[in-house]
Amino acid sequence: MSGLWDGTFARGGAAAAVSDDAWLQAMLDVEAALARAAARCGLVSETAAAEVTRVAGTPGALDVAAVVARAADAGNPVPPLVRVLTDAVGPHAAGAVHVGATSQDVVDTAMVLLARRAVAAIDADLAAAAAASARLAADHRDDVAIGRTLLQQALPTTAGFRAAAWLAGLDGARARLAAVDASLPVQYGGAVGTLAATDGSGTDVRAALADELGLTTTAVPWFTVRLPVADLAGALGAAAGVVATVALDVVLLAQTEVAEVAESGEGRGGSSAMPHKRNPVAAISARACARRAPGLVGTLFAAMEQEHERSAGAWHSEWPTLSALLATTGSAAAWLADCLGGLRFDTARMAAVVEAAGGAQLAGALADALTPSLGRGPAHDAAADAVRQAAREGRSLADVVAGRTDVDVDALLAGAAPDTGQAGAQVDAALAAHTIAES
Amino acid sequence: MSGLWDGTFARGGAAAAVSDDAWLQAMLDVEAALARAAARCGLVSETAAAEVTRVAGTPGALDVAAVVARAADAGNPVPPLVRVLTDAVGPHAAGAVHVGATSQDVVDTAMVLLARRAVAAIDADLAAAAAASARLAADHRDDVAIGRTLLQQALPTTAGFRAAAWLAGLDGARARLAAVDASLPVQYGGAVGTLAATDGSGTDVRAALADELGLTTTAVPWFTVRLPVADLAGALGAAAGVVATVALDVVLLAQTEVAEVAESGEGRGGSSAMPHKRNPVAAISARACARRAPGLVGTLFAAMEQEHERSAGAWHSEWPTLSALLATTGSAAAWLADCLGGLRFDTARMAAVVEAAGGAQLAGALADALTPSLGRGPAHDAAADAVRQAAREGRSLADVVAGRTDVDVDALLAGAAPDTGQAGAQVDAALAAHTIAES
Amino acid sequence: MSGLWDGTFARGGAAAAVSDDAWLQAMLDVEAALARAAARCGLVSETAAAEVTRVAGTPGALDVAAVVARAADAGNPVPPLVRVLTDAVGPHAAGAVHVGATSQDVVDTAMVLLARRAVAAIDADLAAAAAASARLAADHRDDVAIGRTLLQQALPTTAGFRAAAWLAGLDGARARLAAVDASLPVQYGGAVGTLAATDGSGTDVRAALADELGLTTTAVPWFTVRLPVADLAGALGAAAGVVATVALDVVLLAQTEVAEVAESGEGRGGSSAMPHKRNPVAAISARACARRAPGLVGTLFAAMEQEHERSAGAWHSEWPTLSALLATTGSAAAWLADCLGGLRFDTARMAAVVEAAGGAQLAGALADALTPSLGRGPAHDAAADAVRQAAREGRSLADVVAGRTDVDVDALLAGAAPDTGQAGAQVDAALAAHTIAES
Amino acid sequence: MSGLWDGTFARGGAAAAVSDDAWLQAMLDVEAALARAAARCGLVSETAAAEVTRVAGTPGALDVAAVVARAADAGNPVPPLVRVLTDAVGPHAAGAVHVGATSQDVVDTAMVLLARRAVAAIDADLAAAAAASARLAADHRDDVAIGRTLLQQALPTTAGFRAAAWLAGLDGARARLAAVDASLPVQYGGAVGTLAATDGSGTDVRAALADELGLTTTAVPWFTVRLPVADLAGALGAAAGVVATVALDVVLLAQTEVAEVAESGEGRGGSSAMPHKRNPVAAISARACARRAPGLVGTLFAAMEQEHERSAGAWHSEWPTLSALLATTGSAAAWLADCLGGLRFDTARMAAVVEAAGGAQLAGALADALTPSLGRGPAHDAAADAVRQAAREGRSLADVVAGRTDVDVDALLAGAAPDTGQAGAQVDAALAAHTIAES
Repeated sequence: MSGLWDGTFARGGAAAAVSDDAWLQAMLDVEAALARAAARCGLVSETAAAEVTRVAGTPGALDVAAVVARAADAGNPVPPLVRVLTDAVGPHAAGAVHVGATSQDVVDTAMVLLARRAVAAIDADLAAAAAASARLAADHRDDVAIGRTLLQQALPTTAGFRAAAWLAGLDGARARLAAVDASLPVQYGGAVGTLAATDGSGTDVRAALADELGLTTTAVPWFTVRLPVADLAGALGAAAGVVATVALDVVLLAQTEVAEVAESGEGRGGSSAMPHKRNPVAAISARACARRAPGLVGTLFAAMEQEHERSAGAWHSEWPTLSALLATTGSAAAWLADCLGGLRFDTARMAAVVEAAGGAQLAGALADALTPSLGRGPAHDAAADAVRQAAREGRSLADVVAGRTDVDVDALLAGAAPDTGQAGAQVDAALAAHTIAES
Repeated sequence: MSGLWDGTFARGGAAAAVSDDAWLQAMLDVEAALARAAARCGLVSETAAAEVTRVAGTPGALDVAAVVARAADAGNPVPPLVRVLTDAVGPHAAGAVHVGATSQDVVDTAMVLLARRAVAAIDADLAAAAAASARLAADHRDDVAIGRTLLQQALPTTAGFRAAAWLAGLDGARARLAAVDASLPVQYGGAVGTLAATDGSGTDVRAALADELGLTTTAVPWFTVRLPVADLAGALGAAAGVVATVALDVVLLAQTEVAEVAESGEGRGGSSAMPHKRNPVAAISARACARRAPGLVGTLFAAMEQEHERSAGAWHSEWPTLSALLATTGSAAAWLADCLGGLRFDTARMAAVVEAAGGAQLAGALADALTPSLGRGPAHDAAADAVRQAAREGRSLADVVAGRTDVDVDALLAGAAPDTGQAGAQVDAALAAHTIAES
Repeated sequence: MSGLWDGTFARGGAAAAVSDDAWLQAMLDVEAALARAAARCGLVSETAAAEVTRVAGTPGALDVAAVVARAADAGNPVPPLVRVLTDAVGPHAAGAVHVGATSQDVVDTAMVLLARRAVAAIDADLAAAAAASARLAADHRDDVAIGRTLLQQALPTTAGFRAAAWLAGLDGARARLAAVDASLPVQYGGAVGTLAATDGSGTDVRAALADELGLTTTAVPWFTVRLPVADLAGALGAAAGVVATVALDVVLLAQTEVAEVAESGEGRGGSSAMPHKRNPVAAISARACARRAPGLVGTLFAAMEQEHERSAGAWHSEWPTLSALLATTGSAAAWLADCLGGLRFDTARMAAVVEAAGGAQLAGALADALTPSLGRGPAHDAAADAVRQAAREGRSLADVVAGRTDVDVDALLAGAAPDTGQAGAQVDAALAAHTIAES
Repeated sequence: MSGLWDGTFARGGAAAAVSDDAWLQAMLDVEAALARAAARCGLVSETAAAEVTRVAGTPGALDVAAVVARAADAGNPVPPLVRVLTDAVGPHAAGAVHVGATSQDVVDTAMVLLARRAVAAIDADLAAAAAASARLAADHRDDVAIGRTLLQQALPTTAGFRAAAWLAGLDGARARLAAVDASLPVQYGGAVGTLAATDGSGTDVRAALADELGLTTTAVPWFTVRLPVADLAGALGAAAGVVATVALDVVLLAQTEVAEVAESGEGRGGSSAMPHKRNPVAAISARACARRAPGLVGTLFAAMEQEHERSAGAWHSEWPTLSALLATTGSAAAWLADCLGGLRFDTARMAAVVEAAGGAQLAGALADALTPSLGRGPAHDAAADAVRQAAREGRSLADVVAGRTDVDVDALLAGAAPDTGQAGAQVDAALAAHTIAES
């Protein structure tokens, strides 16, 4: 397999964390931890548990090909995995394999382990993106830039304020992932959830297994009540959404006509037909990866409807879907970290745009100035008329306004200097929150 | 409008909470709270703020038709609403309307208010469903029933254990909604988020506005970083998913061939072509409502990608989508409360099924008994062989097993009595967690 | 109900075509047509069928409130509707009501009727948008404009070519809707699809019913094989997608910094905080409506998985979902018709941008000129170097190129005049295809 | 990579058809066809085109590693691919590589080729599933079985009628895929779609390229008007939906309590904890694969909104999404072919269920018999009363009915023999349509 798309869609560490090999190892990790948990509860010997752990941690010790060959036969790979593992540990430790468990115990717990490993990789890239945003917010705290609403130039803001919004989003996404990560539960219930095959020690084994793996426990199994999967879906969808909105800002700010930001990517962004172009490839690729998320999230929420004590299809559909969601969110985060890590703000150009747009702000000030006498609505109309008059007559709005007698023209024009309000204070607040989040 | 579908898709209080009228009132509530917040910060007089509050709370005082007529002109209804409200309060209080705000401040905060009101209605129905599940779990704690995996009869469990799984899911869904509900932030940033039109008091007004409405604040506006919407989407999708999985269990258990549960719905569930049928209409309708959720959730996550300081379309798409998600999740919850509130378990039938399935459990016990001597895999195969032999020869599995010399037959047959393991203990744990959650 | 959002999200005729009242009437239309079909097959008298038709077409003749009150009891509104209709026609015609039918026959066929009515409304607005695109394509066939790839200025194209791409998309969307519209089948199978209650005339009644309503027939009922719904979902999703991509172009071209197009909307697009702004409200609203579609489409495809002879929930979930999809696609189309109908191209500005971007085209020409001697890759690199040199030295690319000796400089500079290739020919082809489609 | 999940989620030929290697080869196939098309139009020599074709068809001749290494740098793999291909063909044929093309020309056309190859594989499995359905429909044309609506036993149908519904769905899905397959267009426009780099021969090259590859042409490029992708998404979603509904029927009919069908899968379907169970693994796995489709379909429709002349992210998101949709639909189809190919109907059990359910049918007949005298509503009520009486008094419904004087009891009881109406005729119609479709 050439891996043609991996550079684009499997960037960062998450994709590797959810590979087929990683799934297999995670299932083995669960079996090993279960053997140790059973030993802690006195169900099997420590020696046998150690042997299971040793073999499960030694890929070469297992007939992986046999597992793969039979993985689809039972609808999930655990039955052949248990056979192969049991064979490999030999008769003395065979009884310590898969103690009291059902396939779903192993698959679900492995899925949780996998998710935690992938989330760690995603978080590392989100953290890098957040750090870059924080730097940009601090460095450009007071550099004026035009704010844009509905893709129209509106009123002045600062470059730092824009970066602070990104920062707040990235920190928020990380906080949500962290909360879910810390809540993920072990699955252990046996065939139908009653723990009937564990001689009354089942809840103890469950607790010990959770402890071995650093997971939480639940009062009852979550075989067909898939809140942990929904939690992951929601937090990953949110993270992808934040990446997408930041990447979209970069793409829009990098437009030829706007040119307020540029990616620094060396040797990247060229065009096969147009050598003069430099595309913001990292932001574009981040969008591409992030846009795959909402559909996958929807699939996972749709898969919550599961039958009886084990679902006949919906459960299975979670595996490739959650894997793809983790991988694409991670790839999106990695691209964004790359993008923001080298992003350059063209502050001179930003300032020039603000100056040119001064008339726009003046219009707002005029409306405000007329409000006490005319009321908000008519004042708003009068200001709009002035803007139209200026455009029609090819004059600056300041020129048109200068002739009015119904407002304090001097105050108005003085006030038309770029006013970024509490942009700075809010940047400081976002940076302070970031510092707390990091500590 | 006849309201033909309302009984099915707009059940419970959530649909009314997100009606067009409710949206309008929520926007007025925000404007009123903003006036009071501005007064608290000394920007307008208390008298003026009181007048805005009075008018905003008096539907008859406003020219609603004028708002509706112009609601689409600016892309959102706030501009005409502000005009009409300003006109209605008169010149002395006009300056206290919409202080320092932009349309999105009002729409977003109104959306949050609306969501909280709808979530309260949803939660009430989820609570009723949870209470019914808790009753069923307690009442049937020790009533045996067959567990089913992949829609095949598996091993015994209890009716109460099944209800406990529902309970855990419903409690989990409620906890997630409550966490999101408590976190929802006010939106207040002015035109581009800098609070430039609030004379340096903007962050104070934001805090006061949050206080007036019982909301949280953020370091920077969330104009295009839509984590609060994602949070709602995730928690509502999870709630709908839990409702769906419980309703699916009811539909499956109510099948003619299974008949372990029945809805009590009086006068409901008849068929136009088949008078002898009684359908579990509440569970069916709960599924219908819940299945609308994942697509709406996906739309909201996709809408997170928003441009610059205000989005040109994605933001707008949230309004009907979140409204529909709240309404349909609420309707699903209301149907489920109805369904579970009158659900009857046929314990005699459940017990009879378990008895008939005893052979199945015996097979498992045989496999366990053979494991020490044969190893897990071959033991499993040997038990499967015995099952096939019994089927082939038309004998009971007990009969076939009785002839074996490689196992302790007496112990095996004695052990084939239904073993529900730690079902009871886990029911108790779920009920205990429920009691804590309720207190 | 104030209808606050209707101006934005229920524009055009589709929303009214799928209202609750429209659903009720469509079901009555089906019952009336079924009575006539049964009469044509000799199962009931012409008189009775005429009476059913008369009553079903006279809203005031029916106790609609009774239908609404019981609409949710059976899971669908047909049972109470049949009772009320039967009561209203009186004993002599009662036997002509609902002949051999099951509820799903009526609901599905009504849904198809509703869809066709809504699609007609959608098509009218798409046709208007296509006509406007055709006008723009013809009027601006040879007006140069810069093409943009990945949101970077690339090479020259024409304004007309851009409009021709919109035209091709709108015509394509219409063709898909028309094909689905013409294929929609009647549903008629009786309780479980066998037509057992029609005395051997069932397939004849089905054919007659299809004929009455202008629908097609199928070999077997499509109770749980939902291809007609999938067809609608696909074609509506495609239409919404085309609207979205055209609207996005308008939003991007209307950016302050680009300003190549402007909507003409009178009295629309104002901002509450910024009187100087003019937003492309129609395009923005079109995007808002269109973005609701993909999630709804996904829900309909997910609902294809239906149980046995009638689904317990998935079927029901189609009704509000398809209604919403029709309404929002229609509203998107109406907004786009409005947007394009008054769209103005600023051809002078477009031409000026092309002139300024001439250097870009020159770079491409330089790469081409160097390819024979250097090979494509190195030639591309050399051209990119020249662009960077020009930028670094603050010179025009023409200036930099003029000094080269490895290319025919004169030819190169002459060729750097805007070359729009076969833009015109392709515009002509799209217009020709449009003319054929319209005829 | 172990390929752990491939047996479940990458079954059939579609997954291989969309592998990374297949993508790479498809792009090379496009480049080769483009060289030949350019030669046919006189733009390059036949010799050079033959050399490009030769090298593009010789994987070992190319530095694939170099392509992979740089594939992400430009946002798509075409720029490095063109360099490597150009290097490999040598200077004499370099000018015949990528004539007049832009990256998107190659990626889009390659995607179409890939889709066609995968669709062929999907179709083969759908055809096998349809053939199996046709056999079941023919073999069991007259074998009675109970029909089930809302998962309740309703009235008799036949096993063959059920299979005919599957057949109609599978044939319908195939017809839709075939129509899309035949409509897929080439992409060829050059940098911004104007064909400016083809010296006026661009539309000729486009036509020749389409001819080389067996594709259709369009009036203008479809760079950002993605109807072909929407067509694929819709047809694949429909195919997956049909597979899902058939597989769901199998899962439900295979329930322990229903047991009307069984999969024949040798050595498959065992359970790790419960050796006595036999699960319908093929149907379960088909559902698992099919359920991934709707979310992927939604993502592709959402990706239709693309910017200007080339999208910055949405376009890119199509590649892995369409690949996944093709692979998972193909895997679902392969599982279903497997499932239906060996599916056994237990006709004795089906008949026994119908006999037991006779009372149900009698109720319907009673209602019909009472309708002339009482009217439909009261007749329906009276029949329901009789059913309740029978249940209350522990008598058969026939017994209760036998005592009535208001109906012709003899006729009624005689008529209570299973009536499968026009099930047989409809089976014949579906088989006839299938024969035509196959010919």
